[in-house]
Amino acid sequence: MIIDFARRAHDHNWEMDPITRSLLDTDFYKLLMLQFIWKNFPRTRATFTLINRTASVQLGEIVDVEQLREQLEATRRLRFRKSELLWLAGNTFYGRRGIFEPAFLEWLEHEFELSDFELSVHDGQLQLQFEGLWSGTSMWEIYALSEIGELKTRAALKDLSEFELDILYARAKTRLWEKMERLRGVPELNITDFGTRRRHSFLWHEYVVNSMRDTIGDCFSGTSNAYLAYKHNLEAIGTNGHELPMAMAALARDDEELRNSQYALLELWQQSYQGELLILLPDTFGTTQFLRGAPDWVTNWTGQRIDSKDAYVAGDEYIAWLQRHGADRKDGGADERMKGSHGTMAPAQNRTSMAAMMRESLFTRSGRQPSGTAVVV
Amino acid sequence: MIIDFARRAHDHNWEMDPITRSLLDTDFYKLLMLQFIWKNFPRTRATFTLINRTASVQLGEIVDVEQLREQLEATRRLRFRKSELLWLAGNTFYGRRGIFEPAFLEWLEHEFELSDFELSVHDGQLQLQFEGLWSGTSMWEIYALSEIGELKTRAALKDLSEFELDILYARAKTRLWEKMERLRGVPELNITDFGTRRRHSFLWHEYVVNSMRDTIGDCFSGTSNAYLAYKHNLEAIGTNGHELPMAMAALARDDEELRNSQYALLELWQQSYQGELLILLPDTFGTTQFLRGAPDWVTNWTGQRIDSKDAYVAGDEYIAWLQRHGADRKDGGADERMKGSHGTMAPAQNRTSMAAMMRESLFTRSGRQPSGTAVVV
Repeated sequence: MIIDFARRAHDHNWEMDPITRSLLDTDFYKLLMLQFIWKNFPRTRATFTLINRTASVQLGEIVDVEQLREQLEATRRLRFRKSELLWLAGNTFYGRRGIFEPAFLEWLEHEFELSDFELSVHDGQLQLQFEGLWSGTSMWEIYALSEIGELKTRAALKDLSEFELDILYARAKTRLWEKMERLRGVPELNITDFGTRRRHSFLWHEYVVNSMRDTIGDCFSGTSNAYLAYKHNLEAIGTNGHELPMAMAALARDDEELRNSQYALLELWQQSYQGELLILLPDTFGTTQFLRGAPDWVTNWTGQRIDSKDAYVAGDEYIAWLQRHGADRKDGGADERMKGSHGTMAPAQNRTSMAAMMRESLFTRSGRQPSGTAVVV
Repeated sequence: MIIDFARRAHDHNWEMDPITRSLLDTDFYKLLMLQFIWKNFPRTRATFTLINRTASVQLGEIVDVEQLREQLEATRRLRFRKSELLWLAGNTFYGRRGIFEPAFLEWLEHEFELSDFELSVHDGQLQLQFEGLWSGTSMWEIYALSEIGELKTRAALKDLSEFELDILYARAKTRLWEKMERLRGVPELNITDFGTRRRHSFLWHEYVVNSMRDTIGDCFSGTSNAYLAYKHNLEAIGTNGHELPMAMAALARDDEELRNSQYALLELWQQSYQGELLILLPDTFGTTQFLRGAPDWVTNWTGQRIDSKDAYVAGDEYIAWLQRHGADRKDGGADERMKGSHGTMAPAQNRTSMAAMMRESLFTRSGRQPSGTAVVV
């Protein structure tokens, strides 16, 4: 038996086990949105605040706030690595190379900085707020959520013996395998991982993603996590989120501008990305009002992401709207377009299953993973 | 990331991964029988032959015969360690210290030797035979069975990827845990591990035994494996096997001696162990004929081990026989005595469950573990 003295000593002596170890360990859409913000709103200031939507879960009692502070501070000290920047520069995203401009990558390397944060506990809840340039606050969203989630995991696992931990992960792997066996039989399956913000831990997330790649193969279209895509040669998936229409609405100066802000965003987005990555996210202020007021040119977008409505209801509503606007084209049609650009945008129900899988695969004696945390502008 | 260079190099370079790493890695009853043989039949010669009772399993095709030869040769080179001999000398077995005589332990240290073996493959079956002094052939039984079993396991696992192996063991642990959860609820449970000869592998055996100790606690009365008992501070369980009446029968010179040999053995055993460890094993040539011809003094034995009959039928038969011989004592009675000496002899149905658990806990794509191998005189 060869003892690895260095590892034993190292394991005894570490002061902190960093949760976020790369600035790429975020959803890919944050990077696309970051370039958009850098390009169009470089001086705009924004505040991100954590809201725990499941108030009954006293996150401030569960998570050690000083440990969270250390994690956030460690994240703030991170810088993009050369290899990560070169990957962003040279890799193909949605079939296109050069989606990130050289000037943006220069800025990312030398000037990008995460904002400061304010952290405290009030009434058993974490109070966490980020203030500063929008480009410096926006990126906190995923780092903060995955760090809080993983600290909650660590708290739940703290009292388990080595044997109990072993059984816990054995059961998690067994459940994961059973779910993948079921998925394997689904015809025309197209599934993408969007687990980062709700994951049990980075290592388990990585295990699940690698397992899916190895098990369901071509049906696994990729991951929203840029670091896992970079590290494991996967497709990075995602376009943009509600953050953009919310910010545009906040920047509107009157009611007319407010109503139009959701379409002004689309114009700005298609300018910024030369007519690529055109996936609508129409539900920020309600899909029905969005479609009612949308200009004709919006029918040229490739598809929609259904995020908060029954997928069939929202799909039918979108198709009917396309037909009313004479956009029921023969070249693919609405059904085809709903798959999203290059067929890589997973239908909402699959995304939901994956999120559910990430959350449900592992549960501890003290209950499920946190799912009620959210960061909103 | 600290790389353990020494371990990586070592793992790449090993020529053989020995299955049996201690001469104690055998059933405890073999050691009790060995002392009995040493004491009463030091010059008797015996032949042990492997018989695969499930002829449809072509063990000679599955197991690499040269690897088996290397394993057997490595086992033959093993010697008892001082700490193992001191444990045999000083430990309490069935509540009694000094069950092994100093002269026997001296002999074990300096003179004990495993016999030579003959190994070949014929018609797809392993041909394995041990010839020599009974003391040198008897001990091969368990080493040979567990080595063949583990080589069969290795053959089954050879084509699995690292991920598939990980899932395999995760599922095995999950099943093990589910079975232990079920066992935990059984009232007055008394369960002993007798898995050595039929185990998946040494390491899995050790894992199962430690898990049972940690999970079902006091209901887990011990293990038949002397090495696991020594290493993990458990009770070593077992008394004797069919080997003894079979050998005694073979040594008989006429029919009268043959019929009496099964009782002569009991006399010799109780002399050898000063009236301790008196567990009958009456089914070698049939329990009914055994009880019909048994002298009155046999009722003084503490209990019986039911090995091949329905436990209730055999129990009722034994109780009726005790009553006919006026041995229906008030001080405990037959029911009490059936639990065996010191309550550590597990009822047959529990033993069977455990054997089943050891076999069923893990199964591979190519089927269950071998259960049709046996070594008989």
